[in-house]
Amino acid sequence: MNETISTILGHRSIRKFEDRPLSDEQIRTIVECAQSASTSSFIQAYSIIGVKDPEKKRRLSEVAGNQAYVEKNGHFFVFCADLYRHSLIGEREGREVLDSIESTEKFMVAVIDAALAAQNAAVAAESMGLGICYIGGLRNNLDVVQKLLSTPERVIPLFGLAVGYPAQDPGKKPRLPFGHLYHEDRYEQDLETYMGEIEEYDREIAAYYEERTSGKRSDTWSGQIAGMLEKKSRMYMKEFVNKNKLNLK
Amino acid sequence: MNETISTILGHRSIRKFEDRPLSDEQIRTIVECAQSASTSSFIQAYSIIGVKDPEKKRRLSEVAGNQAYVEKNGHFFVFCADLYRHSLIGEREGREVLDSIESTEKFMVAVIDAALAAQNAAVAAESMGLGICYIGGLRNNLDVVQKLLSTPERVIPLFGLAVGYPAQDPGKKPRLPFGHLYHEDRYEQDLETYMGEIEEYDREIAAYYEERTSGKRSDTWSGQIAGMLEKKSRMYMKEFVNKNKLNLK
Repeated sequence: MNETISTILGHRSIRKFEDRPLSDEQIRTIVECAQSASTSSFIQAYSIIGVKDPEKKRRLSEVAGNQAYVEKNGHFFVFCADLYRHSLIGEREGREVLDSIESTEKFMVAVIDAALAAQNAAVAAESMGLGICYIGGLRNNLDVVQKLLSTPERVIPLFGLAVGYPAQDPGKKPRLPFGHLYHEDRYEQDLETYMGEIEEYDREIAAYYEERTSGKRSDTWSGQIAGMLEKKSRMYMKEFVNKNKLNLK
Repeated sequence: MNETISTILGHRSIRKFEDRPLSDEQIRTIVECAQSASTSSFIQAYSIIGVKDPEKKRRLSEVAGNQAYVEKNGHFFVFCADLYRHSLIGEREGREVLDSIESTEKFMVAVIDAALAAQNAAVAAESMGLGICYIGGLRNNLDVVQKLLSTPERVIPLFGLAVGYPAQDPGKKPRLPFGHLYHEDRYEQDLETYMGEIEEYDREIAAYYEERTSGKRSDTWSGQIAGMLEKKSRMYMKEFVNKNKLNLK
């Protein structure tokens, strides 16, 4: 197993960091790695905002539900789907690009572009001995995030990435069984097999939680996920994205 | 610079592969690396379909606009946003999860989850000396892809990832200027600065194309992108995603 694969397989989210900022050189390397990711038809439909201002970090932390590691870390990146520059280019070049930019297809392209870049950043940071945690909690209130970071329309902040020197050493949670996640030639159609794999995984996760909490937490993956999905969080998202003139057509 | 960062910075898409299949062990390592990526609230809202069947690969290649490397490679992966299993879990657990699953928020979560996993797969493959190319062209006709791979509703095939032993050694295209892509504390609001950065990049890309084609191709990034966006491709996507009961609310 080479170093890169062992870095990738060793990933776990870090939620406590040393009080030690990343150097500008580290930040630059991480961003350049992000930029090296593939991008759909060379469109580069994303942007990254690094947040250093302590007051902005504090307010982002509030948005994310008071997660301390949004405020206290080595550096905080916000990854955004971005078709703003493309709308300006269309105008300057005198081309009718807005129908395209406002399509669900191009919204997906921008979200995918941003996520590919972010994962390169995450792996690069981890290879440098740093820890990372994705912060989806920014989506709790994108109106506030948008104001704080002054993002123009057609730019959707998708998630944060907290990076820093790890001050904890958590374990890795088992993932869905390989055979359930990975299909060959066709998606598994036999419902008994399919649900059986989930039940097998539920038992594995229940044992994992039980062991880690000395028997205090009793939960399956299915139970946890169904409970989470029942809550209907962030149902304003469609409207927010549409108001920012994306995912409309 | 460590090995992982040099792998990531060295990325370029490979569009010609040796006729040499990946081993099952290589495929498994790549998928396990994909699974090690972060996932929003542990939701794991994606699936991967590996395609070995030569006839299916041929037809996927047709969908993608007859790109030979979709058919001829070491292995072909299809990454899908997947909330199907979550809808089944909700049913089994007796929880009302469908409003949540059908939200734009959860569609974004699934697309992001799939893309993070895919980029881990891409970096892992490249670290093993393999080349990769993302195939967004599958989205030219997802009805066909869905039938070929028997994906159920609430599963959206997002893109392919062709992996294999490289049979070419292309250069790397320059990316948007660091200062244009990366902002600090707030998105750049000065339009002159912002467009000036794009103009600087246009000159860089024009020089790049001119040199690589011995003066035959004269194009800027803006020109290329505006032309591409004017074409309005894949405008059926919103309807396709909605018909598969995602991105509805």
